[in-house]
Formats: sequence, structure tokens, C-alpha cells
Amino acid sequence: MGDRNGSGGRNRGAWTVRGSRHVLRDRWIGVRADDCTTPGGVDVSPYYVLEFPDFVHVLASDAAGRFVLARQYRHGVGGASIELPGGNVDAGETDPGAAAMRELREETGYGGGHFEAVASFSPDPARYANRLHLVRARDVVPGAARPDAAEDIDVVLADRAELVRLVRTGGIVSAPHVGLILLGLSLDDEASAG
Amino acid sequence: MGDRNGSGGRNRGAWTVRGSRHVLRDRWIGVRADDCTTPGGVDVSPYYVLEFPDFVHVLASDAAGRFVLARQYRHGVGGASIELPGGNVDAGETDPGAAAMRELREETGYGGGHFEAVASFSPDPARYANRLHLVRARDVVPGAARPDAAEDIDVVLADRAELVRLVRTGGIVSAPHVGLILLGLSLDDEASAG
Repeated sequence: MGDRNGSGGRNRGAWTVRGSRHVLRDRWIGVRADDCTTPGGVDVSPYYVLEFPDFVHVLASDAAGRFVLARQYRHGVGGASIELPGGNVDAGETDPGAAAMRELREETGYGGGHFEAVASFSPDPARYANRLHLVRARDVVPGAARPDAAEDIDVVLADRAELVRLVRTGGIVSAPHVGLILLGLSLDDEASAG
Repeated sequence: MGDRNGSGGRNRGAWTVRGSRHVLRDRWIGVRADDCTTPGGVDVSPYYVLEFPDFVHVLASDAAGRFVLARQYRHGVGGASIELPGGNVDAGETDPGAAAMRELREETGYGGGHFEAVASFSPDPARYANRLHLVRARDVVPGAARPDAAEDIDVVLADRAELVRLVRTGGIVSAPHVGLILLGLSLDDEASAG
């Protein structure tokens, strides 16, 4: 891989934080304002960092190879969005697999099967301080959903070809979920090839 | 595709907004607090929506098939992140292709070639109100970068196999960028197959 300028140390480029305060702290969100200086001496103040609990999402399939998706209204975009089931990792939950199992059950009713945490990302490295975990679940089976009172979720089942078509044709509007789905399928291929 | 509950109208499930105010408005960010009611009568107040300019990112390759990536410090994660070049669509910029061309030049120096907007997403449908545009650029050529004063960017060149390896092994920490890269490569494959 080419690198025109050299990489230096791992955290080369890190900003110095001279001061920090929260401008917002509510149940599921924190907005932190950091007063920063870059290594080049440029003042970046304030720089806002969004604090959320970690997110977990699950690429779950049943024994027939059908993937379990959740369609629900999302107020950010003001419309419906088809996504991988998931949500916030609760305080005290240290295992993304267990959080994924809980969220999958609550949102879709699916459970059982085998859960494996396969990758961890940032939802948005420039702005978010939290992590987003991808869990792969296989051989899940249907059951009764227990959505939160404010959630109204349709379960959508799609075989692999339908899932790829959804992603390629704009049926998945969430860029991170496009990433989680295509990476999950890619890791499946790698595992079955190797 | 299976659908256990039926989909209803396109905006079935939309919340009613009873009131709205901004709790933060600064140069590149707005935090809006909406007082909402779900169709089921549940009060969701406040629900915070993050307002940013639209984002644009470009999957750019040179004539040798090497992809142009940008590595820089990202203060949200507090470390380096390798991403597709890009940034905010400026006010008055209506063409994602032109915004991508400007950002690619500023951050990496690469220009020329052919730019095509290929897809549009939400960076985070639950929380963000803006759009994220993916632009594909081919046959770009190197030139002089013009980064912002606060930016310190390393250009990373990777052929397709190296890019896929980066994505699969955690070298790309940004979930949306994993999505943009894998979708862009997938659309390339589809075009060359069809």
C-alpha cells in the first residue's frame, strides 16, 4: 500500500484538549464541546463530540438462510428505514453477543441459534465517541417480539439474493447498515472459502 | 421478500411533532429537540435530531486501478481513521459530483478523471437529518493538495485487493465508509458483468 507522507506513530496528529464541557446531557445523548489545538497549532474550538452508548446490530439468518431485518420509522430521516435489528448496549452489558440477542428478541421475536461478535466499528469517527458492534447470528427461530412502547417494527425476511438487491438498489438507506450487511456477507464468503 | 405485518403506506409510523426547538446551533452542527407523539400515542419528548450539511465521499481510482484514501486524526474516536476523501457539501453546491471533486482535490491533490454520483444514503437514519452522497471517480491523477489549516492528511493508495483486505481486517474503522467502499466495488462488478 502506498503512503505518500509516511504514517508516523499510531496517534500522530492527535489534538490537545485544553478544556471540555457538556452542552447537552440527556437519557441517550451527550454533546461534549472540546476546546482543541491541532499539532500544527490551529485552534479548533469548540469541537463537538457526540456521546452515545455503544450500538450493536445483528446480521441474523434462520436455518433456511433467510435474513431477519427490521423496518421502522426513523425520525432523523422522517421516514421508514430497513435496518439490521439492534440498538444500544445497555449499561452493564459487556458482551455484544448478549446485547444483540436481547435486541433481536425484543424487536423481531427471533432467538435461539448461535451468536458471534465479528467486528467493531465507529458509527462516525469524526463525530461519535462510541463503538458499533456487528454480531452474526445463525439458525435463529421466530418467537414473540417485545418492542418498546414507542417502537412499531415490521419484520422483513430476505434471502441472500434479495438482501444484496436491497442494498444495491437503495432499499437500505443507512450507510452504516450497508457496511454491516456487506461486510457480514463478505466474512461469510471468506469463511466458507477458507 | 416476506413481511409479517404488511407495510401500509410509505410513511406509516410517522411521528407527530408537537413542538421543536434548537438546543445547539454552531458552524457545522445543529441539535434539534422535537416533542413527538408516535401513532400509538406514546410521548417521545424530547427526541434529538442532529443537523449537519450533507456529506459527500468519493471512491476514486487512478488509471492503474489504485484507490485514493485519506488517513487523518478524527477527534470523535481520538485516533487515526482511513476513509474515503470527502466532507461537507457547501451551501450552494447542488451537485454532489462537483463537491466530491473539490473535496478530493483539497484533501489529496487528486483531480481530473470522471466523476459520477452513484448513490445517496443517510449517515444514521435515527439521529441525522442530512444525506450522505457516494461519488465514483475514475482515472484521477495526482496534484497538489490544499487541506484546511486544521487538517493533516496522509494519502493512502491501495489496489482493489488491498482495499478489500483493509475493510475485512478492521483497517477501515468507519462503518459508513465500509458501506460506501463495498457498495461502490459491488456496483463496479455489476457494471462490468452487465
